[in-house]
Amino acid sequence: MLFLVSIVSLLFSHALLSPTPDDPLFKHIDDHQHEYIQRLKDWVAIESDSSDPSKRDQVLHMMQVTKDYILQIGGTVEMAELGEQEYSSGKKLPLPPVILAEFGNDTNKPTVCFYGHMDVQPAKKADGWKTDPYVLEEKDGNLYGRGTSDDKGQILALLHAVESAKKFGLPVNVKLFIEGMEEVGSNGLEQLVEDKKDTFFSNVDYIVVTDTPWLSTKPGITYGARGNCYFFIEVEGARRDLHSGGFGGTVYEAMSDLVYLLGVLADVNGKILIPGIYDDVLPLNEQEKDLYKDLVFDLKDLKRDTGVNTFLHNTKEELLMHRWRFPSLSIHGIEGAFSGSGTKTVIPAKVIGKFSIRQVPNMNPSVVEKQVSDYLESKFAERKSPNKMKVSMVIGAQPWLANMSEPQYLAAQKAVKRVFNVDADMIRAGGTIPIAKNFEDVLGKGVMLLGVGGPDDAPHGQNEKISVYNYIEGTKLYASFLKELPSF
Amino acid sequence: MLFLVSIVSLLFSHALLSPTPDDPLFKHIDDHQHEYIQRLKDWVAIESDSSDPSKRDQVLHMMQVTKDYILQIGGTVEMAELGEQEYSSGKKLPLPPVILAEFGNDTNKPTVCFYGHMDVQPAKKADGWKTDPYVLEEKDGNLYGRGTSDDKGQILALLHAVESAKKFGLPVNVKLFIEGMEEVGSNGLEQLVEDKKDTFFSNVDYIVVTDTPWLSTKPGITYGARGNCYFFIEVEGARRDLHSGGFGGTVYEAMSDLVYLLGVLADVNGKILIPGIYDDVLPLNEQEKDLYKDLVFDLKDLKRDTGVNTFLHNTKEELLMHRWRFPSLSIHGIEGAFSGSGTKTVIPAKVIGKFSIRQVPNMNPSVVEKQVSDYLESKFAERKSPNKMKVSMVIGAQPWLANMSEPQYLAAQKAVKRVFNVDADMIRAGGTIPIAKNFEDVLGKGVMLLGVGGPDDAPHGQNEKISVYNYIEGTKLYASFLKELPSF
Repeated sequence: MLFLVSIVSLLFSHALLSPTPDDPLFKHIDDHQHEYIQRLKDWVAIESDSSDPSKRDQVLHMMQVTKDYILQIGGTVEMAELGEQEYSSGKKLPLPPVILAEFGNDTNKPTVCFYGHMDVQPAKKADGWKTDPYVLEEKDGNLYGRGTSDDKGQILALLHAVESAKKFGLPVNVKLFIEGMEEVGSNGLEQLVEDKKDTFFSNVDYIVVTDTPWLSTKPGITYGARGNCYFFIEVEGARRDLHSGGFGGTVYEAMSDLVYLLGVLADVNGKILIPGIYDDVLPLNEQEKDLYKDLVFDLKDLKRDTGVNTFLHNTKEELLMHRWRFPSLSIHGIEGAFSGSGTKTVIPAKVIGKFSIRQVPNMNPSVVEKQVSDYLESKFAERKSPNKMKVSMVIGAQPWLANMSEPQYLAAQKAVKRVFNVDADMIRAGGTIPIAKNFEDVLGKGVMLLGVGGPDDAPHGQNEKISVYNYIEGTKLYASFLKELPSF
Repeated sequence: MLFLVSIVSLLFSHALLSPTPDDPLFKHIDDHQHEYIQRLKDWVAIESDSSDPSKRDQVLHMMQVTKDYILQIGGTVEMAELGEQEYSSGKKLPLPPVILAEFGNDTNKPTVCFYGHMDVQPAKKADGWKTDPYVLEEKDGNLYGRGTSDDKGQILALLHAVESAKKFGLPVNVKLFIEGMEEVGSNGLEQLVEDKKDTFFSNVDYIVVTDTPWLSTKPGITYGARGNCYFFIEVEGARRDLHSGGFGGTVYEAMSDLVYLLGVLADVNGKILIPGIYDDVLPLNEQEKDLYKDLVFDLKDLKRDTGVNTFLHNTKEELLMHRWRFPSLSIHGIEGAFSGSGTKTVIPAKVIGKFSIRQVPNMNPSVVEKQVSDYLESKFAERKSPNKMKVSMVIGAQPWLANMSEPQYLAAQKAVKRVFNVDADMIRAGGTIPIAKNFEDVLGKGVMLLGVGGPDDAPHGQNEKISVYNYIEGTKLYASFLKELPSF
């Protein structure tokens, strides 16, 4: 899954939602739910773990099965080959092809392209699963199994929506862009988007990513994500590690310099101390503030889930704003120092401190890079240590923020209202969604994340699940979205 | 080896030392040097690596071979069994017995007991050895092989000295206390010293440890060592690791608190900032200062060896005093944070910062423990973080300082003067020598470290060696020491 917010937020129970209205389309979906669940079961049984070279044939098989089903429901499919993956050992494995599918090409209709993936995270029962991760089990309204939520379940909800909507006349052209390497970094995908810009993507009006959870049991539509500027601070004191007995008290220790530098980055309350860092943060206006009011989100649930007693902010609005629309700085760790258990008496020679800034619109990674470097260099100069220090930004991923007044957002909001009779939560991701920014930058099209995962699906954890409710009502949501899109 | 000071300090070349004087004892040793080197070769070939369970039989074999040689040169031997070593897996291995040997028990003569060990550090050619570590190779005046310096070579120099001195009438009773588990923590040894206090050790007047290097090519006698108070600072923020996307900007990060606490321990110049920490450090007097004047030690060599360009002190006297007789604080690392290569975006939930204070006479570990805890607790309270913080001292090893006016020191100094025609370097260890303090505390006897290792022997590294010079002249040193001891 592109980003995870593993929060149990079930205050808002399904029973409170209004029943879906009478609609032959919805009835069709309800009537076929056993078939839909059986298909998910069949697909979960294919162990398409892209991280495990010994399972690569299953990933390839999964792509084939997906292709066959798309053909069966009336789509056309091109398999875009990506060549081979070469491991550092020299071993080569075939990369799974990317599915480029199409339902209809009526130039009078808008064209929406959905993105998703058929590979899954690793899973084995011994990791703490209550059931076999590759055998779908239904229990208490949930469907447990690897890939049920991330992303086989969401893609199947979409495919069943397309198949159902087709029966009543599909008012849009639908394209699918489905890969098999998402969980390991989407090898070759960026290049493929670029390569297909003037062919497959040329008539696409909207991009919808179907690989994302809701904030609560209430449907959510994701319109933004923070970026990620990841920094290394390397401090070098000696050519080799020294023993604290022989050298303690005689050398300028690299670790001492590093903890000093890591210590000047932010204060106890998370305020970033780097001059100018907040200058480009978009100001908060009343309209944006309003989006937070009706979000279903309870800090008590978050406390229960994380074991954290006191958050930096006391209200859901403030907390979510600091997760989504304000920058943050986190210190991740140190490479090169002693990190084992026990009591090694080493003076590490060279240490690399690692921290990242989740930056937000309109912060620019290259500006952030300069602000951070200038600040750390001046702080290090003040310290007057003879050790060598180097700051480098190793990731500079931009934030993403969509224009919510675009047709796909309005259609999705209307679809949520129609299926669930509530206003959709307009949400963001605190993490980074490179593919959203990539689609937007390369294709110049509006991107939206419309997933049907639940907030507690544990997509990368043990006992991954999707609720029957999210799976089936999510199918209706996609079908409604297809129906509504031409009206905006 | 008990402590290492891996410094190449070869300014003072062997050729500059006066030739050893005419003495039948020395001639005997010179005449047998090929035999001595052959015996070292035979013993190096026994892979007595105490850390490798699959080589435990070789450690046992090594103890047997040592015993046999002691019997051959006229000693008596008792093998003190230590039982079994139990691994956490439940696997059990026999602990090598400790050799308790004796040459003479004339109540009119003083009795000196030497300590050493026959086990070695791990070694394999693939680690970067130029030769097979278990095949002794002589090259350019050096004998390369695992254990040549640490400690087989030093023990053999002693045994050959005893064998030679016996030919000319041994004026002291000699005891040997030789173990086979030194490199992995001397399992069971402390208890054995306690148990043998009133029997084997009852008539011992002096303890000499033969497992230590010189500071330079000039012989050194070690009379002190720093202690080690090792601390953990544990900071806990959440119950589980969090993702910086989902949680950055919303939680009080444990790493942020930890780098703050590690940052207030010492300043850039190594000055410890903990109130009261220097109160009990013995003042430096003129007599002690004089000991540093003639030490052969060059900062240029130290720079070349370590790659450090600027030390905290500019003179050999200041630098060595801060290695040996002033306390120091080193930060070793952090457990629980991200320590791999790459760019993990984790907010670690619980992190343990590790640092230690090398304390010196008359600092007391329990006073240091209180000073450190009080200081860190007050600093953490000032910070007002809601996270949990705990300070604990996990090692509290005392420093050791001998009385240099005791007979064994005077005899060793005279022996150095006789063999090498120079005044011995009176040196200390910057690290900790638990066994010295233990012998002193349990037995109430004076302890001295008189080794014959060179400063660049790399006892725990690749290409460990001892020079032929140190090995053979060191044999003369031990023989002279035995001869001189009764005169003081």
